[in-house]
Amino acid sequence: MTNAGGRLYGIGVGPGDPELITLKALRLLRSAPVIAYQSATNKESVARKIVSPYLDHSQIEVAFHLPRALEPEKAKSIYDQETQPIADHLAAGRDVVVICEGDPFFYGSFMYLFTRLADKYKTEVVPGVSSLMACPVALGLPFTYYNDVLTVLPAPLPREALISQLLATDAAAIMKLGRHFLKVRDILHELGLASRARYIERATTTQQRILPLDEIDPLDVPYFSMIIIPTKNKL
Amino acid sequence: MTNAGGRLYGIGVGPGDPELITLKALRLLRSAPVIAYQSATNKESVARKIVSPYLDHSQIEVAFHLPRALEPEKAKSIYDQETQPIADHLAAGRDVVVICEGDPFFYGSFMYLFTRLADKYKTEVVPGVSSLMACPVALGLPFTYYNDVLTVLPAPLPREALISQLLATDAAAIMKLGRHFLKVRDILHELGLASRARYIERATTTQQRILPLDEIDPLDVPYFSMIIIPTKNKL
Repeated sequence: MTNAGGRLYGIGVGPGDPELITLKALRLLRSAPVIAYQSATNKESVARKIVSPYLDHSQIEVAFHLPRALEPEKAKSIYDQETQPIADHLAAGRDVVVICEGDPFFYGSFMYLFTRLADKYKTEVVPGVSSLMACPVALGLPFTYYNDVLTVLPAPLPREALISQLLATDAAAIMKLGRHFLKVRDILHELGLASRARYIERATTTQQRILPLDEIDPLDVPYFSMIIIPTKNKL
Repeated sequence: MTNAGGRLYGIGVGPGDPELITLKALRLLRSAPVIAYQSATNKESVARKIVSPYLDHSQIEVAFHLPRALEPEKAKSIYDQETQPIADHLAAGRDVVVICEGDPFFYGSFMYLFTRLADKYKTEVVPGVSSLMACPVALGLPFTYYNDVLTVLPAPLPREALISQLLATDAAAIMKLGRHFLKVRDILHELGLASRARYIERATTTQQRILPLDEIDPLDVPYFSMIIIPTKNKL
């Protein structure tokens, strides 16, 4: 890190409810001349929507698109290209606040910016409330306690990997369900976990939905969805 | 849940830095006539210390002690007894805000109150920034991304359980180190994970310490400490 140029901030803004932003993230959000956020082509940025009540439209806004579904190797040149406008602002001495849904270092696209820019510009990261904490709370499910093992599993993993991990843990969260929902539901039924598992999408937002596993339309499962399997141990 | 009596709130107040409280938790903290917090005998409450800048000393304060090291079965009668003063305030119609370090449903003692009181009184839980997110950020370590498996492991687990879990995952957090530090460090060396593992205690507080694994005095490892093993996969 050097002292030249602007400062880079990666701020977690929480899972969806604007009131779940931290005081620190809000202070930094309002302090910088430039804000930046992930935005899929032709879609509103999830992160920007969370903080929209706090924006006064006086800031420069930079949207970038680091596609999620790419293999890391293939993504490299796209990520380099998408990082450039942020690097240009920093080089010109302007602080940039990157708004991250949830937490920046927990499955967050901010990490791709961090690995490219943190060695060149002063960088500060602010942790946020993750969906991993928000989903059990929204479901009213005490999640992990005492000496529980907790395993976080992305749903795109192969069937065999999901099964062996689920068999070896006390509590689990299965993320990024999307088009992998049916595979996951079948596994949960096979392992006898379906009755303990609970489904939630877009937790803490105004679009939050909680549905029984067997009433979900597999064609209508968003990326921002999660299955929570609370601890098997008696509280 | 019924409409009679006061309301019970369990609010996550974050890992230590008072500025990492959410707007929602701060609003609720200030709204209730009674605040309650875990406090080990003769020790200042960690949770209360976090929110102390926001207290105006007009609220009734209730300290409870739900000891961590007990087996759940043995703890039951103690937990029932410690819950009673909070239940009495609720029965008298007073709202009670229980202040929880980190997140209430993530290895939090609030769950013992929730299971005893949430069926009798209107209850709302507010997720918080967990040390699981705060520690990687404080260490400057991108933690998990893409399709990583993440495993959270309490250090008191048996040696064999820790080893098999660490061998099967991409990234890990080992919590509650305390007197289990030496066992964990030996395992990390055996598995060739020591060079990737990073140690932090009391993250984001003014007492935060980050030390190389082999420079830590095993007799001086607090409960609020963590070893982070960031993803083995190339970002």
